[in-house]
Amino acid sequence: MTAASPNNVEDLIEHIITVLNESGIEQIKDDLQKLHPADIAHLLESIPPEKRELVWPYIDNSRRGESLIELSEGVREGLMAEMDSQSLAAAVQNLDTDEIADLIPELPDDVIAEVLYVADREKRDQLNAVLSYSEDSAGGLMDIDAVAIRPRVTVAVTRRYLRMLNKLPEYTDKLFVVDRDNKLIGALLLSDLVTADDTQRIDEITNTRIHTFSVEQSQTEVAQAFARYNLMSAPVVDDGHHLLGRITVDDIVDVIQDEADRRIMAPAGLDEEEDIFAPVIRTSRSRAVWLGVNLITAFIAAAVIGRFQETISGFVALAVLMPVVASMGGNAGIQSLTVVIRGLSNGTITDKNANKVFIKELLVGSVNGLIWALVVTAITLLWFNNLLLAMIIGAAMIITMTSSALFGALLPSILRHMGIDPALAGGVALTTVADVVGFVSFLGLATIFLG
Amino acid sequence: MTAASPNNVEDLIEHIITVLNESGIEQIKDDLQKLHPADIAHLLESIPPEKRELVWPYIDNSRRGESLIELSEGVREGLMAEMDSQSLAAAVQNLDTDEIADLIPELPDDVIAEVLYVADREKRDQLNAVLSYSEDSAGGLMDIDAVAIRPRVTVAVTRRYLRMLNKLPEYTDKLFVVDRDNKLIGALLLSDLVTADDTQRIDEITNTRIHTFSVEQSQTEVAQAFARYNLMSAPVVDDGHHLLGRITVDDIVDVIQDEADRRIMAPAGLDEEEDIFAPVIRTSRSRAVWLGVNLITAFIAAAVIGRFQETISGFVALAVLMPVVASMGGNAGIQSLTVVIRGLSNGTITDKNANKVFIKELLVGSVNGLIWALVVTAITLLWFNNLLLAMIIGAAMIITMTSSALFGALLPSILRHMGIDPALAGGVALTTVADVVGFVSFLGLATIFLG
Repeated sequence: MTAASPNNVEDLIEHIITVLNESGIEQIKDDLQKLHPADIAHLLESIPPEKRELVWPYIDNSRRGESLIELSEGVREGLMAEMDSQSLAAAVQNLDTDEIADLIPELPDDVIAEVLYVADREKRDQLNAVLSYSEDSAGGLMDIDAVAIRPRVTVAVTRRYLRMLNKLPEYTDKLFVVDRDNKLIGALLLSDLVTADDTQRIDEITNTRIHTFSVEQSQTEVAQAFARYNLMSAPVVDDGHHLLGRITVDDIVDVIQDEADRRIMAPAGLDEEEDIFAPVIRTSRSRAVWLGVNLITAFIAAAVIGRFQETISGFVALAVLMPVVASMGGNAGIQSLTVVIRGLSNGTITDKNANKVFIKELLVGSVNGLIWALVVTAITLLWFNNLLLAMIIGAAMIITMTSSALFGALLPSILRHMGIDPALAGGVALTTVADVVGFVSFLGLATIFLG
Repeated sequence: MTAASPNNVEDLIEHIITVLNESGIEQIKDDLQKLHPADIAHLLESIPPEKRELVWPYIDNSRRGESLIELSEGVREGLMAEMDSQSLAAAVQNLDTDEIADLIPELPDDVIAEVLYVADREKRDQLNAVLSYSEDSAGGLMDIDAVAIRPRVTVAVTRRYLRMLNKLPEYTDKLFVVDRDNKLIGALLLSDLVTADDTQRIDEITNTRIHTFSVEQSQTEVAQAFARYNLMSAPVVDDGHHLLGRITVDDIVDVIQDEADRRIMAPAGLDEEEDIFAPVIRTSRSRAVWLGVNLITAFIAAAVIGRFQETISGFVALAVLMPVVASMGGNAGIQSLTVVIRGLSNGTITDKNANKVFIKELLVGSVNGLIWALVVTAITLLWFNNLLLAMIIGAAMIITMTSSALFGALLPSILRHMGIDPALAGGVALTTVADVVGFVSFLGLATIFLG
């Protein structure tokens, strides 16, 4: 924890940025020492790369490791690329085992070798264990520093044991009660321990009905359980229910934030780990792929319109009105898509009730299709004074909005079955379909009735 | 905590839903008793309103209140509307003061009167205090059950005091150390208390450098601090630094999730509290507003195209290609918009560095404008075999993508100054501008050079 209150820290960081912009590093050397590693990470993410290299040398090794962990991948990569192997190893080896494990994929081989060489045998074994779990699993989230106690001793004995340990791991809100084979029996909240009598036995005050996680469970599942049951920490066990470690809520907060960022950034083809001050060329390249995909879908729509050139040249009002149909279809579809993606991800939509949701979205799409078809028909009639054209666009609106809403509702399940993330590809796929249906229905009907 | 592991609970809920669909309520009465209030809320959100009314009578009052708190607003509203005043008051009065305060705005007057009548004087005073803070502030998030101890007593005395309390409030990870005027001195982690010697004095093991919040701070600010500094709980103080209560991380997890939901749902004009099984007409109405706004923007674009009808009728390829220009401009703009909204909300973009970000987004938009202009020029040349047309669309692409990217970067600050949430209105505003710029530049250049 830092000396300053959160508000003061923001002011301090702003002060540091101002000084960095104006007069260089000398005057803020002392200020940098006051910052928590998370604040250092925030500062580094808020300044361009050339300023980061001015600041970094003034951060000591003990805070460098923690700061690296807190940084987004894009910024961390840049900083680590500028560090020599020795100072990188020095920064990393102070970290907890699970934190080192998270960094390993990004570290050069000689740094990994150096870190392993310096580590003692126990830490090396732990590191191997943690590295065997996927980063996105409960195993990958797990800390191996769970404090375990025995059920048949008294509170007084347990307290003596804890005094002997001298210090408990950070974020310890409960102790885990295990038998002699390290099988998990339950958990004892510290808040229950401190209110218990010295003579009570641990198993009298142990909660045996606790949430446990297995190493393979996905971090999304773990995060949902933490949020739903307001967990502070929870044990991770193997298939034989042996205690392996614990997951703490501070890591879960990160998982939830990262997941939210991903769901907001992915639909625009953006990587949530990207450095906002990355070089223009690098950022342009990373965004170009998604623009390329969109270009393909735009030309699919153009090709559809191209089939109706003759009709349009005979009746140019069609060109004026056709974007209205496609755009309203796209918007109705995006609403269904967004509702269903969210329902699937928070578990309110399941196989059992999916059909009800699909039917509802279809009906909502029809109702709004009908309403806005009437409005658009009226506007078209007033604008172009052509009843047939007005009726054609009305019909096309109903067709496009209804089918886009249904497609938006079905799309997430379809994409999931294909192994594609709906948050990433859903919007693009939906827009393409809405454009194609919108242009084909409007221009097609016009070809039939006006041609 | 529940008997079942999280996995079993999911299976149990699925089983309940299946039985509800097939054979009614009788067979699952016992299963319903096994569910945690959060699970009941999840179950209710996953079934249509008519099934909810079958389930609800089997939930006892002690769990009804907690379940109501966990429900999304849309579903809660429906359930409460079906309850008579007495049973609603019975469900609510078991809740903690801060939870009752959250529900008050949704409760009918006679229920509020009944709840206040039953509450003792202390609870009534507390309720008045909590109700005086905005729901979105630290005061609104605060629990008033913080356990306070004195600095100059020993660990042994403190332990006797805690044993006397018998039970500590849920999620107590630390005790707050205050002077005789209730001024906050620091906090003592329970994990430090249990490892301390009986003879040590509290002020020897108290952490005096802790994060505090004032009642008026926004919940977003509080959530950011919790996430950044990995807080489990933190004290709330008044201007004189007197201890008022504490905020716990379980509430912060909810704030972060709600905020993320809002940021994902708002761009599609959706209310994150809406019941997915709400009646079709109700949902259609709530979505219609946003579709109406989009219709206006679509007709703005149509009006722009309408100015160029003559040019289009002379050269119908323009109608085929014009959506490509608008769509690519929109996409480039959405990328900038998304990056900047996120940077502003997590604080990496500030007044100090905003100009750097704007310039970067402008450059990225230009680079991608240039690249995709070349591609589109080539495709157009191959498709229509018209060099002038190909050059015109290339120029329009550069203009549209560059200006949309810049506009996307500037828009969030502009909307914020106007008091409008960029997450809600940013996408619509951006698409409109991209359409207008795209159609005007492409059709305008065509009118000049092809007309």
